[in-house]
Formats: sequence, structure tokens, C-alpha cells
Amino acid sequence: MAEIQEVNGPVGFSDLKALQFDKNTWPRDLTRQSSSTSGVSSEGCTPLASRSSSPVFTRLIDKINQRIALNERWFSIEFFPPRTANGAVNLLSRFDKFLEGGPLFCDVTWHPAGNPEGDSATSSLTIASSALNYCGLDTMLHLTCARQTKEKIRNTLRRAKDLGIKSVLALRGDAPDGDEWTFNSDGFNYATDLVKFIRQEFGDFFVICVAGYPHGHPEAESFEQDILHLKQKVDAGADFIITQLFFQASTFLKFLSACRKAGITVPIIPGILPIQGYHSLKNLVKLSGLQVPKDIIDVVEPIKDNDEAIRNYGIHLSTQICRELFDSGRVLGLHFYTLNREIATREIAKNLGLWCNELQRPLPWKPTANHTRVKEDVRPIFWATRPKSYVYRTQDWDEFPNGRWGNSNSPAFGEMKDYYLFYLRSNATKDQMIKQWGEELTCEQDVFDVFSCYLSGEPNRYGNKVTRIPWNDDEIAPETQRLCKNLVELNKQGILTINSQPNVNGEDSTDPVVGWGPPGGFVYQKAYLEFFTSRDNMEALLEVLRDYPQVNFHIINHTGTENIRNSDEFKPIAVTWGVFPGAEIIQPTVVDTISFQYWKDEAFGLWKEKWAKIYPEMSASRQIINHIHDTYYLINLVDNHYPKGNVIFEILQKMLKSKANPKRSIFSIDELDSAKKMKMDEEKNGDVE
Amino acid sequence: MAEIQEVNGPVGFSDLKALQFDKNTWPRDLTRQSSSTSGVSSEGCTPLASRSSSPVFTRLIDKINQRIALNERWFSIEFFPPRTANGAVNLLSRFDKFLEGGPLFCDVTWHPAGNPEGDSATSSLTIASSALNYCGLDTMLHLTCARQTKEKIRNTLRRAKDLGIKSVLALRGDAPDGDEWTFNSDGFNYATDLVKFIRQEFGDFFVICVAGYPHGHPEAESFEQDILHLKQKVDAGADFIITQLFFQASTFLKFLSACRKAGITVPIIPGILPIQGYHSLKNLVKLSGLQVPKDIIDVVEPIKDNDEAIRNYGIHLSTQICRELFDSGRVLGLHFYTLNREIATREIAKNLGLWCNELQRPLPWKPTANHTRVKEDVRPIFWATRPKSYVYRTQDWDEFPNGRWGNSNSPAFGEMKDYYLFYLRSNATKDQMIKQWGEELTCEQDVFDVFSCYLSGEPNRYGNKVTRIPWNDDEIAPETQRLCKNLVELNKQGILTINSQPNVNGEDSTDPVVGWGPPGGFVYQKAYLEFFTSRDNMEALLEVLRDYPQVNFHIINHTGTENIRNSDEFKPIAVTWGVFPGAEIIQPTVVDTISFQYWKDEAFGLWKEKWAKIYPEMSASRQIINHIHDTYYLINLVDNHYPKGNVIFEILQKMLKSKANPKRSIFSIDELDSAKKMKMDEEKNGDVE
Repeated sequence: MAEIQEVNGPVGFSDLKALQFDKNTWPRDLTRQSSSTSGVSSEGCTPLASRSSSPVFTRLIDKINQRIALNERWFSIEFFPPRTANGAVNLLSRFDKFLEGGPLFCDVTWHPAGNPEGDSATSSLTIASSALNYCGLDTMLHLTCARQTKEKIRNTLRRAKDLGIKSVLALRGDAPDGDEWTFNSDGFNYATDLVKFIRQEFGDFFVICVAGYPHGHPEAESFEQDILHLKQKVDAGADFIITQLFFQASTFLKFLSACRKAGITVPIIPGILPIQGYHSLKNLVKLSGLQVPKDIIDVVEPIKDNDEAIRNYGIHLSTQICRELFDSGRVLGLHFYTLNREIATREIAKNLGLWCNELQRPLPWKPTANHTRVKEDVRPIFWATRPKSYVYRTQDWDEFPNGRWGNSNSPAFGEMKDYYLFYLRSNATKDQMIKQWGEELTCEQDVFDVFSCYLSGEPNRYGNKVTRIPWNDDEIAPETQRLCKNLVELNKQGILTINSQPNVNGEDSTDPVVGWGPPGGFVYQKAYLEFFTSRDNMEALLEVLRDYPQVNFHIINHTGTENIRNSDEFKPIAVTWGVFPGAEIIQPTVVDTISFQYWKDEAFGLWKEKWAKIYPEMSASRQIINHIHDTYYLINLVDNHYPKGNVIFEILQKMLKSKANPKRSIFSIDELDSAKKMKMDEEKNGDVE
Repeated sequence: MAEIQEVNGPVGFSDLKALQFDKNTWPRDLTRQSSSTSGVSSEGCTPLASRSSSPVFTRLIDKINQRIALNERWFSIEFFPPRTANGAVNLLSRFDKFLEGGPLFCDVTWHPAGNPEGDSATSSLTIASSALNYCGLDTMLHLTCARQTKEKIRNTLRRAKDLGIKSVLALRGDAPDGDEWTFNSDGFNYATDLVKFIRQEFGDFFVICVAGYPHGHPEAESFEQDILHLKQKVDAGADFIITQLFFQASTFLKFLSACRKAGITVPIIPGILPIQGYHSLKNLVKLSGLQVPKDIIDVVEPIKDNDEAIRNYGIHLSTQICRELFDSGRVLGLHFYTLNREIATREIAKNLGLWCNELQRPLPWKPTANHTRVKEDVRPIFWATRPKSYVYRTQDWDEFPNGRWGNSNSPAFGEMKDYYLFYLRSNATKDQMIKQWGEELTCEQDVFDVFSCYLSGEPNRYGNKVTRIPWNDDEIAPETQRLCKNLVELNKQGILTINSQPNVNGEDSTDPVVGWGPPGGFVYQKAYLEFFTSRDNMEALLEVLRDYPQVNFHIINHTGTENIRNSDEFKPIAVTWGVFPGAEIIQPTVVDTISFQYWKDEAFGLWKEKWAKIYPEMSASRQIINHIHDTYYLINLVDNHYPKGNVIFEILQKMLKSKANPKRSIFSIDELDSAKKMKMDEEKNGDVE
């Protein structure tokens, strides 16, 4: 006789229950979905570490604790504000490169002497905000309180909050110019005061980090006393600790033990200084009041004029220290003092298996790290090569479309007049641009050739490689390579392409060229091409398009008075999407009429702002560019039949063949010279900076 | 010398400008996208006519005017409330069948004697609301005002509005029982009064139709006088006119001319009565006060006892009249008095090319016609075979997810206790159910066999075909055929499937089996299977699933105390989606945890409410069903690797092979009998109605 079995609870599959996923994890957490079923990795590179985790945490301390829970290693990187605006532009390029390695966060030091809370390109706040908003690095801002009023600190923190910064490293700060420290009975005397103040004024909004001193603070009465001070900082509300530099793993591990013994339970991250040069080492040692161990001095002194040798030694030494720290089993994260340089930190991180060189893209475009945009999952394709500009122009949006573009008709795009904002600037000089784009333009064909050289990699007629165009400051994307041969031919004939993507029909989401998102998915693209071309071409194109109803098009002139399309103004067209396990379809890139009209101003504007202005005001070269700006059309084409190949090139070949009036297709400088009655460009702005 | 060409406006492509699409057209308007470029069809069937147009209009008069603008023909259908609840259930099946033909709307007559504004299954309001909300037919309600108070009319209109009815046919109504008409100085005397009252009280909310009398109203002083009355009704605010029946096209055309001459400009729709029987003809003629032409009587009288012959004559006659109307070039729409029957109207509509037999589905599920749900574009797959139940349970939602399921966590599903609401009822009798599902069940295998016979089409052991199961009142869907062989085998072995779909990898949106949405698109599905099965099977399944990380699963028992899954509670999984030109991805079917928990109650409940209750309370048969209800699990599986085939059957075969405890897999009646201490089902509700 069988008995009726009562079923009150799960039997024998409790571990499967753990497969349940947490809330608020869309979309970037998807990356961890597959690994969570196969156990936790405790070694080496954790893909998407800095930008994606499951669940998605926006608070830095949560991210750190998650790594601890998952027993995953990570690294972070420290920078200081550069002295010049050009330096700031270069530092941003470095941020972009560091991002590829997958750091958990970066931090930016506070330069009390350099108006750190100001608006200049070199202020601590600007650099930190740029790293966060435009480079996609989660960013912590240093803040020192010595000799500051509460009002000033409050204002600085409010501004930081407005900019999206959610983490602060609270420091006392040194007395200026080596003065003795004086007690301030009405203000901030210790970092503890600052921690308390931040908690009191801003509650839990900020994650607060404080500094630990493995060698003891230079002003501390004793090592033990210093640990007690640290305990006070934590008790006042600090979330975690980053240590000052040290020269031996044992120094840190002893300090760590002392902290734990004193009841400090928050994460303690060792600060690692890769020695990169003799003078920087001496300077840092002076600032920190530390003694460099004799065995290090013995190595460095003889090679003090050979920076590369010192750097290699520094890489070797730091790698060794970090390995010891990891081997102790008590360290997961490492904080690198980069000194704003890339190589040493990158090499150490690579040696340790922390550098994720082949980072799986979470989305086909680079997300910002600003927590207000954590749910942003769709962008118009137009800004594909100008993501910083897109972030800048949408910085005031209250919310970001979640799951679909939907509300593209409501939020207005910010004005694109600030072509010279440092974080939107090219890091090329005017001289470099002239070399690449032509010292003198004599006809439109000269312009066509710049475009085709950029795509082909062949030198221009001055023998210079064209590594950028006004619409694209970077090398061409790997996926553009798939189209490159066709694009070069088109550009030579005056179809000046600025954005493109090939059709993709269900390739693996891990594909190194077109893949994005978590593994196990399938990605798709509709073929897309955006270009400037002449009126003749445009008219011929319209005729050809009659035979291709599967193609959506937008055609617009620089004023917007001509605006021809065959798609619904309020209906975005998904051009990139992905299908992933356990999720809705993700459609992160769209073509839509409304944002195209905003993009049009920017795209046309770049002809004048970035290109025309490198030439003298009345020069023929400038006239050529202005003529293109004034008479060309900006056109985009979407081939909706993505499983069936790409008809866009076929269409454009037909257009070139069928041009109504081929003799007018190229407009030469001779014609321009004769046209004295031509209305000159009225733009009176100065030259490119 | 070339001159600089000024570009002020488009040249030579003004017709292409017309390709711009209108707003508010998502998603069902997509259907017209391709035809709009190729010109307007003026002949024959217009796919998706009743449910889709571009742009999507929710007001009936806008739909009619759109057809006029597009020169497209259409038809509509009239019904009267049946006398019994069973009749109402059958009428709903008829609505479903008529819907396939693509009528523009239906209307439901007002039975003043039958409590037409009541809540019963047979009231005019209930039938009209059911047609609209549950059958997806845009519906107009008749309303008569004779001897009604303003308060009562106001309340009726308010209720109609609440139910989603937006169109009213305003009538005076006949004096009851053939009484003479008496003037009511304080109330409604003419339909004009009612039209004025509706406009006054409800503004433009309702579309108002009024009746026209091609033969003149029986009480009218003259034909001319009657046209003047009609003009008054229109001037009072009527949007269009439907005429009383007539017997010759010329009667209508003459009436139409007279109306236009009198300044009536609104659409005038001829009312067509297919003669379907001798007695109904006599009755109608009596009610309308019309004379039947002698040539018709001469045909009908001799065959008055042969309904089929009369019907065939009626089909012939009406087809002829309608052809004459169309040939006049002055008629696009036809209104059929169906007398609640299907064949005659359908055949006439087919003869005229108005019946859309192969209607392209706008979405993979049947939308309701309620204007509040016009943007509804996603539903959980669970209710795939019970769409009316889904509409019922979500009728109180304020808004419907637009573009994505997104807010599945906020709106609560209505309770599913009303298994006997007439519009949710099966139109099978208890006797039919017993014959199909087994006069006596002796073991679980008997139940398995019912499921497998339903899928295979083979007779059950009593020799009866199983045409329905409690979860599915209809024949199995064409796409289920693709899986049928596998499903039959599984059901025989106790995997009791209630919902399924094959994987689909980018088939044409016009595919007759799996296609939906406008042409030119590509549709996709993840393979899905939902079934009940025993605990043994479930445990074996969990083991097998460890090897299939690409499969999402939900497993739940009837109380919900066991709830095992590997997907995010708040993250729906798209299982059907489509990619269309000029649009975002449409993902109309999802699997999600939250609605699965609501569905679970309904799915388990159907065992008891629909199946167990056809057997006597203490019977072994009922115990078998209750045992399944109490101990089985409801499971769904989604194979995320849709381009790579379907692993679900492979998984279930492995499960069947690896069952931990095969001897307990089938639970026989002998075991049940011995288990006297078994807690009996406490459900005390009565038998199935």
C-alpha cells in the first residue's frame, strides 16, 4: 500500500533554488547569468567587472562586497587632475583605455591649490565627473577638509552629487607648504570630522572611503594610536578603507591584522604604487613621509636616468607584492596609484590576470557610469562614433528610456554649440588635422579622398595617414571593416559615409566583432548607412529607392527645410537588437526621425566647426567645405531585410549609374571662383582652438 | 560657368513625401505599410479590415470615413440577444467565427422587454459588451427611448461607456404590443430626442447611428416628410445612417439620392436582409410594415417548408442586390441582418469578395476591440488558449503595457472564481464532457489518455472524439500540429501538456501557420511547453535540467508553496517576437513569474471546476482528478536557443528514462481506495451547470 505523500517543501534541490535571480538586474547583469549556474570564479579576469554585475549595484561599497561574496578579484585606479586642458583631453583618452581593462572604479585626487571644485577642465570635480559621465568609469572623488568651511564642503558635495558622483574619499589633507598642523576649533580637524559631516548632511547618499596607513600616519603618536584613529573614522560612517602605499606585502598584512583585531570590519584595500621613475618615487616618498627600503634604493639608484628600466623594475616589484597579497588569501582588490600613466598599471594587472582585454561589451555602445543612467538601454545610432556628445546633450534628461525608445518625442536634446568643451574635443592639434584633411582643398574630390583614405588606411596625397574625420575621432570600428571595401569605393565617388553597420542575422552574442551582452544570446542588426551627398545624388537615389520598399530612409538638408522620409515620425526603427536567455528582447540602437533632426545640426555643424575653421576665413579650402555644408544632404538608409543580405550598396551603385545630371556631380574650385555673387558663409566664429 | 543652385524645396518627389506615416499607428497599422506605397485597393477583401487600419481609429465613424477615403468595401453584422444563457454561449462562438471574415463592426439590438440593460447573460448590454471585449468585434449597441425616463437612459449609457461601448444606434422604439403611439410631453418622443440627449449628456464620446427608411417609415406622413425627419436626426448629431431592409437596389439608391438632395451628407449604409426562412421573413415584414414584392413571394411560397432552399434563394437574391449597389459606385459598406445565423451572411460576403478567410493575424493572440486596450501589445503565453479569461481577469487594468511587459509586477489579476460566467463557459454540455473525458476514471492513465486523444484526434476508449480539454475549448492550433507527434507520446506517459509552441527562427510574417503582423517582417518563437506532471517526474526533470542551462523553467504546485525557477521574478522572458520594417521589435508573448503564479490558480482550478465536478462527489473518478490536482506540478519550459532546434522533447525523454522511482510513476485507483485516511477534497461547490 502506498501512502499519500505530503508535499510541503522542496526535496533535494535546494541548490537549484539558488538559481533564482534578483531584482533590478536589467540589462547589464545578464552577463553573469551563465556563470552563476556554473559556480563562482575566484581566479583571474571577471568579464564586465566594472560595468556589469548581477545584480547591478550602483553603490561602490555594494560592488566591493559583492566581489567579496563571490570571491572575485578586482583592481581600481587613481589619477590626479592634470595641469592643462590639453592634459585633461589626454587623460580622458587614458580613461577610455583603462576602461577596457575592467577596473572596478577610479578615483581622482583633490588639489586644494588648483580650484578643485571649479568648472575648469583641470579641476578635480570636472575630471571626476568626466571619468564618470563620459568615460564610463565608476568614480570616487577625493575631498580634503583642512581649513575648509562647512559651507564650502557642503557646496562641493552638492555639486558632486549633482554630477552623479556617489563616492568620496574623505581626507584631512596636508597643511599647505609643509606648515605645521594647527587645530581649528570651529571647523574640520580630522578626516573623522569630515566623515561625520558627510553622513550628517547627506545621509547614506555617498559611499565614504577613508585612508589607512600601513606604516602608521607620519603624525601619529604610535601605530596603535593610528589604528584607533582609523577605527574612529570607520565608526563615524566610513564604508571602506584604501591604504597608503607600502613596500612589502607583510607591511599591509600586519596592518590588516591590527585593524581586524581593533574591530575594524570594513573592506581594506591595499594601495599599490608601481615605481615608474626616480623622481616621482622621491617626490611621493617625501609626501608620504615614508622610508624607501634599502634593497629598492639599491636597485633604483644605479638606473635612475633610465625611466624604462625603472618602470620595468616597478612592474616586477609590484607584481610580486600583489601576488603575495593574493596568496595570503586575505586580499581580493588592489588599488593602483597610476600617476596618470597607463603602462605600468596595465602590465601589473595583466601579470595578475586582472586585466580583461577582451571585455564583452554589455551593449553595442559604451554606457556611462552615472547611476541616474543605469537603466539606459537604447540610443539613436547617429551618435555611434560620438558617444560623449550624446551623453553631454542628454545630461539633463530626468529618466532614460527603459526597454524601448518610446518617448523619443518628449525630451529635448541639449544644444550642440559647445564644440570645444574639453571632453568633446579631439586630442589632435590643428596642425595634425591640416596634415590629415588637406593643406589646401581645390575641389570636392579632395574632400572625398580624405574620407576614402580614412577608411582605406592609405595615405592622403600629402603622404599622411588619415586617422580621424570630424565625425569620428577614433579608428574605425571592427565591424566597419566588414563593409570597408564598399565604403571606400562609395566615398571616392562622393558618398561621404559617417556611420554604418553591416546586417547581422543571429550571430553569437560573444562574437568578438558584432557581439555584445551576456553569453548565450543572439544578436541582430539591420544594415545601416549614413552619409552626406550632393543634391544630384540624392535625387537619383530617391528614384532608385522606389524599387526598394524594404528600405527606410531619411533625407535632410542643413536647414531642415527639406526633410524626406518614408517612416513614421514617432516610430523608432530598431536597428540593433539581441535575444538573450531569460529576458525580453533588448533593442539598444534605433533610428528615429526626431533625434535625427537634432543629430543633423551636429553632423552638419562639424563640417564648419571642425573642418572649415582649420583654413583661413576667405580661403578656397574653407569655401569648398562651406559649399558642401550648404548644399549636401545628410541621408540614412536602413535595410529591413536583414536575413537576406544588404541591398544598400546595390542601391547606391544604381544611384551612381543613374544620376540625372552627371556633369554636375563634382563641383570644382574654378566654378566656385567664378561665382562671385555666391552668398558667403556668415559664420564669424574664431579659428579652431 | 555653373551657377550656385539654391535649394529651397523638394523638386520632383512630392509623391514620395506622401510616404510619411501618421502618428498613433502602432502596432496594428503596420499592416497597411506596404500597401500604402503601392496605392489603394478598391476591390475585394481588405485584410485586417475590422481590427487594423492605418492609422488606428477607435471611433467607428472614423473607420467608416477612412474606408470611404480609401475607397475600400466592407460589411457589418447585426445580432439580437438570445433567449437563454446557452444561446448566449453559442452566439459568442458565432461572433468568433464572424470575426474571421473581418466585419467592420457588429451591432446588438435592444430588447425592451428583456431587461436589456441588465446583467444577465442574455441582456443587450451583456451581449454587446461580450462581442466587444471578449470576441474582438467593434460593437454598436441599439438603444430605444420610447417610454424611458432620462435617468434610465443616462444610466444605461453610462454603463455602456464603462463597458467600453462607444457606438449607439439611437431608435425611438416601437410601442409595445402593437399599441398606438402616444406623445410624451416630458420624455422622448422621437429618435431625434435621444440623439440630442446623448450629445448633450456625453458630448462626442458616443458615435451615434440612426435608422433610415428606404420605403419610408410606416408612420410617416410621406416619403419626403420622412427624409426631413431623418435630416433632423442627423442635424441633432447623428454620425451615420443604417437603413431598414429593402428588396430592390433601386429602392435604396432612390432613397440615397433623396437624402443627399435634402442635404444629408453623412454615410448611409444599406441594411441587407438575407431571407433565411419563411416564418422569419413573415415576422420581419410584419415588424417593419413592409410589403414583400410579389416576385419574391412567388419564389418563397412554394418552398416555404424547405429552409435550405429558401436560404439559398436568399443568398442568391441578396448577392444580386449587393452587386447592384456596388455597381452603382455609390456604396462601399453593407450592413447584414444576420438573424443570429452565420451561413447566409457569410456566403453572401464571400460571393462579394468581402469575407477575409485568410486574415493575417495582427498579433499572435486575438486582441479585444475595447478602445481602452487598443495599445495592448503583450500578454503572458499562459492564457494562449483562454484569451477570454485573460481579458476578463485584466478588465480593470487602467493601462496596458505598451511595447514591453515591464510593469507586470504592478497590476493585479482579477480573481478567477467565476468559472461559470457565460462568456468563459464551454459550449459543451456536461453530457458531452463525460463522453469525451471518460464516464469513469480508474487510474491516472485514463486521464493521460484523454490528453493524448485530444492531441492525436483518435477516439477515446468509449469511441468518442475528444475535441476539448478543460484548458482548451477549441481545436488545437495549427502550429501545435508541428509538435503533435511528440506531444501525444509525452501525454501518454503523464506529461499532460496544456500549452506549447514550436521554435521559429525568422519565418516570414505572412506564414499561414506561425505568421502574424504586417507583411515584410520576420517572426520568431522560443520553443515553449507547459504541462502538469507528477512529483517523481518533476524531481527527475530537475536533475536533467542541470545539463541544459539554456532552458528557463518554472515549477509550481497547486498551493504555490513550492515554486522553483531559474529566472528573475521581475524579468519577463519574450517567447514570441517579430521584426518589421520601420518599427521597433514587437514582443507580444512573454513568460513571466508573476503572472504564472496567477495563471497557476486558474490552471489547477480547472481540474476541479471543469473536470472533477462532472463526476459524483465521492466517486473514484473525482478522486483521481482531485489527486492529480493536489499532487501534480505545473511546469513550463522555455528553450532559449531557438535558432538551434528544440531541446524540450529531448529533456523530457531523458526525464522519463531517468525517473528516480519508476514504480511510483502511475497512481492507480486501487492505491487510492486503500488510502482511506486521505484528506478528502473539501470543495463543496455544486456540480457543473
